[in-house]
Amino acid sequence: MMSVNDECSAKGQPRIHKVVLRVRTSRLEPLPEEDVLAEETPVALEYNGIAYATMLATPADLEDFALGFSLTEGIVEGPAEIYDLELASGEVGVIVRIEVASERFARLKARRRALSGRTGCGLCGIESLAEAVRPVPGVPQGGGVPLAAVLGAMRSLRARQPLHEATGATHAAALAAADGSLLLVREDVGRHNALDKAIGAAARAGLLRTGAVAMALMSSRASFELVQKTAVAGIGVLAAVSAPTALAVRLAEEAGITLLGFVRGEGATVYSRADRLVTE
Amino acid sequence: MMSVNDECSAKGQPRIHKVVLRVRTSRLEPLPEEDVLAEETPVALEYNGIAYATMLATPADLEDFALGFSLTEGIVEGPAEIYDLELASGEVGVIVRIEVASERFARLKARRRALSGRTGCGLCGIESLAEAVRPVPGVPQGGGVPLAAVLGAMRSLRARQPLHEATGATHAAALAAADGSLLLVREDVGRHNALDKAIGAAARAGLLRTGAVAMALMSSRASFELVQKTAVAGIGVLAAVSAPTALAVRLAEEAGITLLGFVRGEGATVYSRADRLVTE
Repeated sequence: MMSVNDECSAKGQPRIHKVVLRVRTSRLEPLPEEDVLAEETPVALEYNGIAYATMLATPADLEDFALGFSLTEGIVEGPAEIYDLELASGEVGVIVRIEVASERFARLKARRRALSGRTGCGLCGIESLAEAVRPVPGVPQGGGVPLAAVLGAMRSLRARQPLHEATGATHAAALAAADGSLLLVREDVGRHNALDKAIGAAARAGLLRTGAVAMALMSSRASFELVQKTAVAGIGVLAAVSAPTALAVRLAEEAGITLLGFVRGEGATVYSRADRLVTE
Repeated sequence: MMSVNDECSAKGQPRIHKVVLRVRTSRLEPLPEEDVLAEETPVALEYNGIAYATMLATPADLEDFALGFSLTEGIVEGPAEIYDLELASGEVGVIVRIEVASERFARLKARRRALSGRTGCGLCGIESLAEAVRPVPGVPQGGGVPLAAVLGAMRSLRARQPLHEATGATHAAALAAADGSLLLVREDVGRHNALDKAIGAAARAGLLRTGAVAMALMSSRASFELVQKTAVAGIGVLAAVSAPTALAVRLAEEAGITLLGFVRGEGATVYSRADRLVTE
């Protein structure tokens, strides 16, 4: 059994083992048992040598994560704009070093300057707010996605979450074809990271903007940021196990995304663009 | 019924109403029904006129949120260091303008400089990683918290989540006394925001560091950041409905926090400092 203090565990393994106590009010002297925990690691993304963002993530599929994050944050527009991507172990986490095209780096630096806001001004907040809800592209308006395929894909996803099965601490994102067959699944302690990983993996495999990906599926609730990422990836359907927020629904309407929540068993709630779904 | 596009809904109301379709594969022509959605709003925090962070949050209890975030991020050490706090409606969200003591502002600016990392260097990532897992204070080592009180407090919390009850889209954080009675509850679309709101509310009420708050309770999983916030607030017990991550457990051990997961019904799993709990 590996100790939680094992150096290696913080760097590369998505799960670790630990002895815990399972207690009940009726049981005075509980026996120690072994439990499996999901690892959570700080991951720092550096673009052309400049630190951009640090997130807590599951240390697996980090190349997918870095590419997906770069795409969905609008830092690059395609995998070809990333010249190099390297993982390095830091003292307390993982550093992902990404080299991007010089014009992309200039845009990134401009954004950072806007965020650091050197002069005291009321507009700093506005700029950040506008950045948070930046416009997203509309998705292709093709229709004809069977509702049964969406529900079937979600049922398949529930059986394809090994890290969640072992730990209970992670969410999953999947991308599926129009017939509901899963193309890929990624897990992470953060739901936004899981979707970035799935989108990054799809981009690496050349699946985006080919029509191959008809839907994204989330084991979680549907936030504004998940709709934003789905829109940037050009995916027309986002289905979540739990509820969306109102802001997520508004953005889905604007981007032309079919947003489903409470996708469970044979039923779901459709919040936007129901006309894309077919029911025969 | 309020439209989701109603301007007002984005600014102050934590819930809105919308007509949705509840569909089943067996039902071809679903009837529209009314649903209640949790609002999600970009909230920009400005310190002494400088934009610091923008988060998506439930637009309720934002004064609590701003104070709690300022405390748990280590920007101020107590409510008295915040001289003024003002909410303003931005074009697309809420701006919280906070005036802090000048020495706190200097520390904040130094941190921002480290994050913006103007020169290309391998250390930028390290600095960010170190910031992500910055040391936290140990919590007071008093013991004697009844396990039954923790389980009872969690049962009480389940009945005190009106926004979640209506929308299914929010998490809740509660602070409770050693006998399990709930002192306050806050809800948010983000679990970290919910805990910041609860800690901010407790600080405003003068409850922190008096011994009045014996435990924090979360309706969610337990992440590293939730343990970090609990430690900074000086609370000895953190109980979550779902699983913790391995990094959360390591930090709880370091800070001397009793971390419980899967707190459901009459049982729980104890991940650290079980000796603080008493079972009679």
